[in-house]
Amino acid sequence: MTAESGKFLYEEIQELILEMVKTGKLQPGGKIPSLRETSQKLKTSVTTVMKAYMELERKGFIESRPKSGYFLVNTQMRRLPQPEATTPSPIPNPVSKFDLVMQLYYTMGKTSKISFAVAEPSSKLLPTDELAKMMKKAMAQTPNHSSYETIGGLPELKNQIAYHMLSSGITMPTDKMIITSGGSEAIYLSLKILTKPGDSVIVESPCYFGYTNILHALGIYALELPTHPVTGIDKEALRRALMRDDVKAAIIQPNFNNPLGCVIPDEDRKEITEMFRKSGAVIIEDDIYGDLPHEGERPSTLYQYDRETVIYVSSFSKTIAPGYRVAWMCSEKYLTPIFKYKTSTTVDTVRPTQLALAEFLASGKYTRHLKKFRGTCASLVASFTNAISKYFPEGTRITRPKGGFILWLELPETADTLAIYQRASHEGIGFAPGTVFSSQDKYNNCMRINCAVVWNDETEMYLKRLGELCHKALKE
Amino acid sequence: MTAESGKFLYEEIQELILEMVKTGKLQPGGKIPSLRETSQKLKTSVTTVMKAYMELERKGFIESRPKSGYFLVNTQMRRLPQPEATTPSPIPNPVSKFDLVMQLYYTMGKTSKISFAVAEPSSKLLPTDELAKMMKKAMAQTPNHSSYETIGGLPELKNQIAYHMLSSGITMPTDKMIITSGGSEAIYLSLKILTKPGDSVIVESPCYFGYTNILHALGIYALELPTHPVTGIDKEALRRALMRDDVKAAIIQPNFNNPLGCVIPDEDRKEITEMFRKSGAVIIEDDIYGDLPHEGERPSTLYQYDRETVIYVSSFSKTIAPGYRVAWMCSEKYLTPIFKYKTSTTVDTVRPTQLALAEFLASGKYTRHLKKFRGTCASLVASFTNAISKYFPEGTRITRPKGGFILWLELPETADTLAIYQRASHEGIGFAPGTVFSSQDKYNNCMRINCAVVWNDETEMYLKRLGELCHKALKE
Repeated sequence: MTAESGKFLYEEIQELILEMVKTGKLQPGGKIPSLRETSQKLKTSVTTVMKAYMELERKGFIESRPKSGYFLVNTQMRRLPQPEATTPSPIPNPVSKFDLVMQLYYTMGKTSKISFAVAEPSSKLLPTDELAKMMKKAMAQTPNHSSYETIGGLPELKNQIAYHMLSSGITMPTDKMIITSGGSEAIYLSLKILTKPGDSVIVESPCYFGYTNILHALGIYALELPTHPVTGIDKEALRRALMRDDVKAAIIQPNFNNPLGCVIPDEDRKEITEMFRKSGAVIIEDDIYGDLPHEGERPSTLYQYDRETVIYVSSFSKTIAPGYRVAWMCSEKYLTPIFKYKTSTTVDTVRPTQLALAEFLASGKYTRHLKKFRGTCASLVASFTNAISKYFPEGTRITRPKGGFILWLELPETADTLAIYQRASHEGIGFAPGTVFSSQDKYNNCMRINCAVVWNDETEMYLKRLGELCHKALKE
Repeated sequence: MTAESGKFLYEEIQELILEMVKTGKLQPGGKIPSLRETSQKLKTSVTTVMKAYMELERKGFIESRPKSGYFLVNTQMRRLPQPEATTPSPIPNPVSKFDLVMQLYYTMGKTSKISFAVAEPSSKLLPTDELAKMMKKAMAQTPNHSSYETIGGLPELKNQIAYHMLSSGITMPTDKMIITSGGSEAIYLSLKILTKPGDSVIVESPCYFGYTNILHALGIYALELPTHPVTGIDKEALRRALMRDDVKAAIIQPNFNNPLGCVIPDEDRKEITEMFRKSGAVIIEDDIYGDLPHEGERPSTLYQYDRETVIYVSSFSKTIAPGYRVAWMCSEKYLTPIFKYKTSTTVDTVRPTQLALAEFLASGKYTRHLKKFRGTCASLVASFTNAISKYFPEGTRITRPKGGFILWLELPETADTLAIYQRASHEGIGFAPGTVFSSQDKYNNCMRINCAVVWNDETEMYLKRLGELCHKALKE
């Protein structure tokens, strides 16, 4: 999405910058002239210069850092390789690390000075004041919503969600939608009605530990499939897995998956949904990061390819309101039994938070927030990647997500990230150790890092310290 | 709890009133002089007169009506008898009226001009503005609560709940407490970890249809036990039921049970918990109406008699914030597995609503609200009882709850309240038909009426019309 007006300007600017380097006025990694300076120098508008800068950034020549401006990319800096596709065991696995996950839940919250652990944006990055205003407005209305007609979610919010999705070309009928208490509830409800204990469910490998928790709770086996850090779950492995009788469903994050950040290529999406339709198994599509591409358009969904085979789940937890626990799900075929089951468990979903979000979406503020927050995520992932490249041991691999705010690191094979986790948490540094992302004995040398925190010297210092702990662990 | 100062004054006032009747200045059912008038006449403070009026009301001599003052009880008015103890089948029953309940959920919300159907106070009776202010305050704090340490509930709220319960002499340790998304979730989680499909769970008969929904969802049988409209579940029936191997738990509402309004006598509570301790079965105590006695002190709980045998559940849904879905549960013995299971389903409970409630409790406003709301419930139940006595057919029986805002009516045996429900809902009048309160073919001539709506001429008119529909149905 290059701006036409910047087509040649960026080349002119690149020449200027290279001239500065040649004359010693600028070092690799140094700050390049501001938008204003360059626009004055070249007698062009700031907007035009900005478009040229964005093009240069896209080309990897310069990089933006939040609130600091643009910098010449340090070409001396080593570029860490990406992890390779994973190769989990092809046998459904009942082993869960539930207790370890619970233990981590405790220490994560209690010891972290800085939380790289939880995949949740810091409230400092979110328009909490704006949202608070909406909540005030919602509360002022004090609507008489005390009726059972709202069990499936407030119509106001469902309409806004449908409208929001439609703006990306995705049709989501409100009569096939219910609001749930977080995305996890939606996945739990789906699996509850689709499976019985002893069945198997396909997941990506590594996979979000919340999924294995749910499978564990329901007595279901996890069938982890090979997953590529760029293109996602392996199509051929999927095809083979779907031949098994015990496979009733799959949980798939096609967009900016947690933890790998991978995106299933558009051209594969139709084929994948067709595979499932033929086999009769159901895809539970968790699109919780779908609203957070670093640039360009929002990616498509699996749901839009087959509304019967796919149960769609998304949420506001990663984009705007982690504490609200407001998610939604859509299904043509399974909505009625899911709705019934929900009515027997949590019954209703909290109303004021739903109303506040409905107001926030209706006001257009959600769209504006997303636009900004996508850029923030992109910058943060870049800053974290740079720092990790600087401070982490030789042989570390790192993902290159094109959306969301999560990085997955693969340290050299001898590293034990659970041991590193214990040490780091003593120093108040949290991250999620790789082992919890599999039901198998895997990813013990990996870690997931949440980049959605404020980037400053302290953040960099903690990352540096984490790198040192990794170095140390490898030498032992 | 008569005020000492009013001990003789009330007799004096009673004589004055009788004198007015004798001289024709006052008719039975008529308005008696206001507090101010009487205080001026007797040269006593308004407070003292009020205490005397309250004593006269307690004695059934006069009655208060919200915003209207005090009235001489119409002794001509027939007093409907109470229902007798119920006699459900002693065989655990898998039949559920889940689909009927779901159908009612739809029509209840959609057609009612006046909702006598849902057991939820109208927002007009609640301090929604005050609570909105707390929500604003909570939002303004925008605390960085985005951490997993809050999964079990915000410490601020748990502390306030513990403090609130302690003010009634009930110790509820915060480290044995979790916050859930409504009371239903708490009961679902408890049953999920205590039972397996095919087990039986004891419930009162009639029982809240939400329970049978949960049992249905989990594949558990309901063992309904005889229940007395004043003293609650039958002790001897309980003893016999606990001899069965398949009985793993009971759901009991000891205080102002829904729908009968019964209260288990204090002297039986210890004995009941001991029965369960011996048998190894668990009591899930649903104390959701415990904060709403019409007068006097808050009743005790089963939990305080045995913290190991009893899982305690309560909520703010009936007292202050139906839409917030904030409930809590306490258990010495089962908290860890329950907490784990919750972490695999809804994970966290919504934070802003929790914070707002914590603020509301901390400010003392909850205590003040309860004080007022208890009186409101008492008046409303009295007004509804009077109107029903006037307008409903001969042979109708009605409960006399000493707390909460629910009435249970037993019409003559030939009445089919489901048929009446269909007709009434066409006219925009909702109530809950008796059949949904049992897994057996019972209570087809009963109905539950929610009195927590604003009392005015229109309300009375709807009750009158409902009475007419009952008359009509009996004649067919």
